[in-house]
Amino acid sequence: MTDLQRQTWEHRFASRAQNINASEIRDLFALLGNSDIISFAGGFPDANLFALPQFRYGYQKLLEDSPAIALQYCASEGYLPLRRWIADFMRRQGVDCSPDNILITSGAQQAIEFLSRLFLDKGDPLAVSKPSYLGALQIFNAYEPDYHFFDGDGISIASPGADKTRPLKLIYANPDFSNPTGETMDGTARRRLIDLARANDAPLIEDGAYRSLRYEGDPHPTIMQLDIADCGSIETSLVVYCGSFSKTMTPGLRIGWICAASQLINKLTLLKQSSDLNSSTINQMVMHCVADEMFDASVNISREVYRQRRDNLIRALEDHMPDNVNWKKPEGGMFVWLTLPKGIDARTLLAKAIAVEKVAFVPGRPFHADGSGGNTLRLCFSSCPLDLATEGVTRLARLIAAETAELHAMA
Amino acid sequence: MTDLQRQTWEHRFASRAQNINASEIRDLFALLGNSDIISFAGGFPDANLFALPQFRYGYQKLLEDSPAIALQYCASEGYLPLRRWIADFMRRQGVDCSPDNILITSGAQQAIEFLSRLFLDKGDPLAVSKPSYLGALQIFNAYEPDYHFFDGDGISIASPGADKTRPLKLIYANPDFSNPTGETMDGTARRRLIDLARANDAPLIEDGAYRSLRYEGDPHPTIMQLDIADCGSIETSLVVYCGSFSKTMTPGLRIGWICAASQLINKLTLLKQSSDLNSSTINQMVMHCVADEMFDASVNISREVYRQRRDNLIRALEDHMPDNVNWKKPEGGMFVWLTLPKGIDARTLLAKAIAVEKVAFVPGRPFHADGSGGNTLRLCFSSCPLDLATEGVTRLARLIAAETAELHAMA
Repeated sequence: MTDLQRQTWEHRFASRAQNINASEIRDLFALLGNSDIISFAGGFPDANLFALPQFRYGYQKLLEDSPAIALQYCASEGYLPLRRWIADFMRRQGVDCSPDNILITSGAQQAIEFLSRLFLDKGDPLAVSKPSYLGALQIFNAYEPDYHFFDGDGISIASPGADKTRPLKLIYANPDFSNPTGETMDGTARRRLIDLARANDAPLIEDGAYRSLRYEGDPHPTIMQLDIADCGSIETSLVVYCGSFSKTMTPGLRIGWICAASQLINKLTLLKQSSDLNSSTINQMVMHCVADEMFDASVNISREVYRQRRDNLIRALEDHMPDNVNWKKPEGGMFVWLTLPKGIDARTLLAKAIAVEKVAFVPGRPFHADGSGGNTLRLCFSSCPLDLATEGVTRLARLIAAETAELHAMA
Repeated sequence: MTDLQRQTWEHRFASRAQNINASEIRDLFALLGNSDIISFAGGFPDANLFALPQFRYGYQKLLEDSPAIALQYCASEGYLPLRRWIADFMRRQGVDCSPDNILITSGAQQAIEFLSRLFLDKGDPLAVSKPSYLGALQIFNAYEPDYHFFDGDGISIASPGADKTRPLKLIYANPDFSNPTGETMDGTARRRLIDLARANDAPLIEDGAYRSLRYEGDPHPTIMQLDIADCGSIETSLVVYCGSFSKTMTPGLRIGWICAASQLINKLTLLKQSSDLNSSTINQMVMHCVADEMFDASVNISREVYRQRRDNLIRALEDHMPDNVNWKKPEGGMFVWLTLPKGIDARTLLAKAIAVEKVAFVPGRPFHADGSGGNTLRLCFSSCPLDLATEGVTRLARLIAAETAELHAMA
């Protein structure tokens, strides 16, 4: 078989396919299998923290009590008791809603994909933070939007090449312990995004995947709660909240949700139906069982463990990193974001880090829709035990120090 | 809240959203909950036939042996042992392939959705059978294709309004016990579709969801096998096979697959990653366990039961239906397709059938991309016990006879 024969598919693809390309994340999944490497890479929760006895009991009980329901198709909008539970959960987040406002998705990833497919025509103006969740950018890219940017304070920033004469079509924000920066938007920043949405009549996606993982201080109200306080009802809110059990309970069941105006949920349910009919019935039922019994208890354990890992990572960074590397301590989530001296490219650094120091992270550039951020990188602290994390930072700091010295020698 | 306020979302949608609309299928899911009604509607497998002890054991064993893998994210292409099992299964279907040719999807529905997203630009010529699987048409509609049609013999038929000057971009076929007609394409018809694909250099989706459910006679080779025999390798085949465990093992775990050239699988894996990261890890592992232990045994039981139900339904139709109603006996699958006298609209009939006779089916028009087929309907025999099915046909026949009489009285 010649290379030419193998490469016969590209010309058959739709134009959007040109923007569907491999990312750093993908190759990094492979690193996890190599136990030699200390990994700060993939944004995984620690599997040791999952409520294992409850999941085991859940599957057993459901296959005992209601196998014909659990193993059958279910309604596209999702399993009603789970939608009820999530509506209750959202009310605890200050969002007045009912199960009619909830669609079950296969993770928040699918939620963002549906919203992009529903709202974005080619060339539509889309506002995202810079940097932004890489997995969301991968989705958006396939819909070929015109990117606009805002910063961590919700203030629009220069977006060279973007057409400023057209109103925004969609806004995407990850306001709590953002992936990748770990930063949290304050009340003022959240209000700025609501103003932006209202001024453009544009839906605002609030990605709340990490929201429950707060390690200190009081939570800010969700953007959705703030908007509903203004407009009076979820039915007139422009905010679309995407939630997930992946970071709190387990990602292995692929259960997330969208909370939004019921009219929008109805349309999204049709998209769900044509996309994969429904999320796994048995998994929805088990997730309902386990969340209902011990969501808070399980999350509290995760918060305790992750808080220690965050503190440990920050301490190691303070102890070992050269002065010219910067970061902020996140109030929650899974990530610490490093800014390296200009001139050090994190992607090149990663290759050396893996080969020489056997330590891994995610380079920052792919999180920037405009291709900037070459000297930034993301460390994930959630799945790395304390002693290994300290050792990993020591190795990484040694490498960065050497790179900095080399940079100076060349200057 | 006024109606106006509620209806504020439409103008914010992308243009493709205009083609995402509610279908007959959706409302019919609701009928299942009403035990009064004899339903030939939803295309569900019978939950009583699922390998319940094996699924129960599978979840228990995996949560005992490898919980940290089962409850964690997994690679987007899917769980390797399951991909190996499916590659073996495809080889048993005459398709020489390896795990590199397999992507795990959340049912065949997701497989068809990915392929549409990858191949179809707005206005692209797409060839489908008439009638065709409703769930596939729902997917295609969102990508706004230019529909072309072929019949059960694989022969192109009149497609008024279609642009015949442009080559086809994609072909979709459901050659074994088709949903909705129950018909099977013979070798000649399959070869015609391959010729069509080659003449247009167009990928050919072979939807094999029902293929394992054959009740008599020898199977025809898959279209993929025939094409590979011509072109020499799956790597140069234009056929993309979509498979599913939903009709054979259980739909509740949402596990299907795509089998195709590895280069295409690589691209589709990126689409999978951005769409929902991966299908449920634990479900893939459990499906592998159960399929590996007893796929053939489980399918043989289903075939035995469904064969009886098919025979019973055909007998009931022969005994009770008026002469002017036509159908063919399917060699497998789940469906019998009725053609009513012209002038009887199956959608109107359904409303009366539910209200008066308490029997349900799916009207045929939504399976026709050109809006024809008003006098056709689909009966699903897989999930209806023998005595109820006989009673259901008696009721339906009585209603159709009355409608026909009324039609004659009006003429």
